[in-house]
Amino acid sequence: MGPHLLSRWPAWLFSVAPGWWRKGHSHALVRTACAPGATLEQRRWPGGPQWVPGASPLTCRGCSSASKRPAEVMLTQERYPVRRLPFAAASEEDLAAFERILPGRVVTSPEELAAVNVDWLRTVRGCSKVLLKPRTTEEVSQILRYCHERNLAVTPQGGNTSMVGGSVPVFDEVVLSTSLMNQVVGFHKVSGVLVCQAGCILEDLSQYVEERDFVMPLDLGAKGSCHIGGNVATNAGGLRVLRYGSLHGTVLGLEVVLADGTVLNCLTSLRKDNTGYDLKQLFIGSEGTLGVITAVSILCPPKPKAVNVAFLGCPGFTEVLQAFSSCNRLLGEILSAFEFMDAECMRLVGQHLHLACPVQESPFYVLVETSGSSREHDGAKLDAFLEQALSSGLVTDGTVATDQRKMKMLWALRERITEALSRDGYVYKYDISLPVERLYDLVTDLRARLGPSAKSVVGYGHLGDGNLHLNVTGEAFSTQLLGALEPYVYEWTARQCGSVSAEHGLGFRKRDVIGYSKPPAAVQLMRGLKALLDPKGILNPYKTLPSQ
Amino acid sequence: MGPHLLSRWPAWLFSVAPGWWRKGHSHALVRTACAPGATLEQRRWPGGPQWVPGASPLTCRGCSSASKRPAEVMLTQERYPVRRLPFAAASEEDLAAFERILPGRVVTSPEELAAVNVDWLRTVRGCSKVLLKPRTTEEVSQILRYCHERNLAVTPQGGNTSMVGGSVPVFDEVVLSTSLMNQVVGFHKVSGVLVCQAGCILEDLSQYVEERDFVMPLDLGAKGSCHIGGNVATNAGGLRVLRYGSLHGTVLGLEVVLADGTVLNCLTSLRKDNTGYDLKQLFIGSEGTLGVITAVSILCPPKPKAVNVAFLGCPGFTEVLQAFSSCNRLLGEILSAFEFMDAECMRLVGQHLHLACPVQESPFYVLVETSGSSREHDGAKLDAFLEQALSSGLVTDGTVATDQRKMKMLWALRERITEALSRDGYVYKYDISLPVERLYDLVTDLRARLGPSAKSVVGYGHLGDGNLHLNVTGEAFSTQLLGALEPYVYEWTARQCGSVSAEHGLGFRKRDVIGYSKPPAAVQLMRGLKALLDPKGILNPYKTLPSQ
Repeated sequence: MGPHLLSRWPAWLFSVAPGWWRKGHSHALVRTACAPGATLEQRRWPGGPQWVPGASPLTCRGCSSASKRPAEVMLTQERYPVRRLPFAAASEEDLAAFERILPGRVVTSPEELAAVNVDWLRTVRGCSKVLLKPRTTEEVSQILRYCHERNLAVTPQGGNTSMVGGSVPVFDEVVLSTSLMNQVVGFHKVSGVLVCQAGCILEDLSQYVEERDFVMPLDLGAKGSCHIGGNVATNAGGLRVLRYGSLHGTVLGLEVVLADGTVLNCLTSLRKDNTGYDLKQLFIGSEGTLGVITAVSILCPPKPKAVNVAFLGCPGFTEVLQAFSSCNRLLGEILSAFEFMDAECMRLVGQHLHLACPVQESPFYVLVETSGSSREHDGAKLDAFLEQALSSGLVTDGTVATDQRKMKMLWALRERITEALSRDGYVYKYDISLPVERLYDLVTDLRARLGPSAKSVVGYGHLGDGNLHLNVTGEAFSTQLLGALEPYVYEWTARQCGSVSAEHGLGFRKRDVIGYSKPPAAVQLMRGLKALLDPKGILNPYKTLPSQ
Repeated sequence: MGPHLLSRWPAWLFSVAPGWWRKGHSHALVRTACAPGATLEQRRWPGGPQWVPGASPLTCRGCSSASKRPAEVMLTQERYPVRRLPFAAASEEDLAAFERILPGRVVTSPEELAAVNVDWLRTVRGCSKVLLKPRTTEEVSQILRYCHERNLAVTPQGGNTSMVGGSVPVFDEVVLSTSLMNQVVGFHKVSGVLVCQAGCILEDLSQYVEERDFVMPLDLGAKGSCHIGGNVATNAGGLRVLRYGSLHGTVLGLEVVLADGTVLNCLTSLRKDNTGYDLKQLFIGSEGTLGVITAVSILCPPKPKAVNVAFLGCPGFTEVLQAFSSCNRLLGEILSAFEFMDAECMRLVGQHLHLACPVQESPFYVLVETSGSSREHDGAKLDAFLEQALSSGLVTDGTVATDQRKMKMLWALRERITEALSRDGYVYKYDISLPVERLYDLVTDLRARLGPSAKSVVGYGHLGDGNLHLNVTGEAFSTQLLGALEPYVYEWTARQCGSVSAEHGLGFRKRDVIGYSKPPAAVQLMRGLKALLDPKGILNPYKTLPSQ
């Protein structure tokens, strides 16, 4: 079935300009000549972060030929004012002990370590000398029991797709990878409950449950690389929060290994369980600092029978907000995404990725997705919204897609902004929650404040969740520009009672800004929880909680 | 607009037999001559627990005239093997200090204390000598700071609708009522975020947000009495979990006063906030043992434009399960409830409440509710499901309602089972989560096991959530019957990896069965959390965590 057309819209809106979709862009292996020691973990990143030249001034920005190799990312301990805590260093005896626990899965080769020591944004780099690849919870338990006794610090790592340096060591922490813990434990075809190991790749799980007529309750650009355990550990948000809510609601159970090796089995598949405190909640979003998630039980919603994507141009941000209200009213339960991007974003994806704008140029664009159980009904609801939005001037132009290929094209405009930004220069990234009516004011303010000192100041994000991705680019890293941005952006956010990290977490790079969104009593209680669960502080040290 | 009819269904199905709906049943004040010291907290309990003679053998079961007064409920300390912990007893000086904090709102009159010392099921009774009625968070903070210093134990109390004795003192704990903390702080008409004090009555909030075209994400029989703070503290489930998920997902922020009086302000209204650990989750479902919730920020979904209720007869439990799968497939995103009850439940509501069965007698009945944004579309989807269910024999008879009055009648059949049970005799109540395909086996097993020693053995509940309400009645309380039920029911549940408390919590009466659903490592961590947050153990003692 083709796209349903609004009679007043010209047919050309539903076709796509030749060449605007980058050929060959798919879920294929992403590896360029620039990538040092790319591993399987770096494969398959559809529309999300990819290894691209110029991702950071610390790399070979601007390198254009395969012969040039990027400069090594500066070590975190050199770039940031952070001091190593008095953990033990892994000795030959420790390596031998690990080898007894994980025969043949203790990695010390510099090539493989290089990849797990650096984040994909290439902003932080550790110097771990050992990477462990357990397959079972029991192995994780033995590792942590040993490390706890020996006072060895441990960095759990999933797909290593953190935006805030949360998934790589800061110094020489032992890296504990979930990459071999990738088995589905079971799937319940009536309830849609999936139980799996923590190292399953999100996209693999999506495919697994979609074959069984369900969908994962979360989706994000990094799906081709990220692990479900890491998603849960970071309370990943993404594209489906509007519809299915956060992981605090959809995760039914967790198995977690605590710092001393104790296995905490809360891997229930029940939708309701009020027997005592809901311990799993502690670990959702704690970034591996309170325990290592080894298995996940998650509720998958039924797969929608019909999906529509509309890409629309709006004359102003007020109209974007009004269109959102109108969507809520007219699309109701079938609204599954309401994303926005500004004209600057469109300029960047055009300039750097050669994606053409499928509608008339506008100050703002929104992507509306519906997911429902009846193609006919959903189409009628979407038409009613579009008629109303067009006739009232909320939307000036638009295109609708119902087939897979065109929907992907429209989504790419939104999902590949990150990639376009990284090609524009050095990127200052902010991930902010704000009251929705103030969402864009920060971008406008900042554009005026920075003037020509910034190359681009762009705003986009999950409007339906009140989540702004604010990005600023410059020709190269500049302390002056950084000084103009911070703490200004954080103070501005705090004045609106917003969050300085909506979905990316704090990790290493944002842990010291927690105070802009959380009061001292909350931070103190967090420290208490950390001390209770990990008294020696060996789990993902230097992350989440602010430096003392 | 009237109900939409399936042509094959006779019109009489859509009318209701005269007199089957109890006249005058509404949200009116419920108080009978039997009720000693009924207070405002006991008002307005639509379709849920009401003050009825014979609710418990500890009361005047069978009393039929206003001249008889119920026997006093036995004191908890006499009925159960529990020892008072070494807290201070409230002295005259303490009362004076409270009076300085809460001028005129320190209650010591025996009449008012009688009502807050006993639970509505009349199974537990404390002997508190003082009831405090703060209006503000600052007052709660001052009270707790004082009690913490003086080592006075405190029982927080909302609407006092606990099913497990969670909301009344066990000994002489100070009762801290949220009844005067009943102000709406704000409502955001775009996002649907409601911020209010903890003592707001759920039904009042429902009305408040419905006037603004939103609905509360939770609904339960006790809505006319229960407080939102208590709902959150007990992670109340109820009738909308299937559609809107649990409070762990819909509560956006909390303000909580900790045991030492510290105010923890996590009252954010943001849908996304990953700045550190999600502390509010600790307090959701912790039954007032970790802190006193003083304000709640909660996300309200848009009010559905169309609601349909179908009440159906099914020939067996297998067909009930198949009908649920069919509902998921054909109703998809508009399915908002899938409740079931067995023939014994129908017999009881008929016998004790004179409600007539609106369909042909069947072994099982299901109530299907849809909530959506288009009356026409939703009706078409429901018709498609009903056609399919009837033609394939999953359903043998049914009736559909779309107008408010008839929908309430159909819902009453399900919601008033509790009331019918309490009129049937002494009730042994179990609230179990099980894998949905085993949900009814426990009822069948138990019926065979108990034989004529039980008066009624009934099963009903939130099938869509895998939540069985298993109730057994006897002529009077019998230790022999209790011995046949416990630990049998708990062991049966544990073998299926179920939960021995799906939504009611543990409170006082179920705290010692936690081990059937949680491993020792989990209970140990819960004790650690309690010690961290409430080192003196003054908050709601003898609740949630098992006796040592």
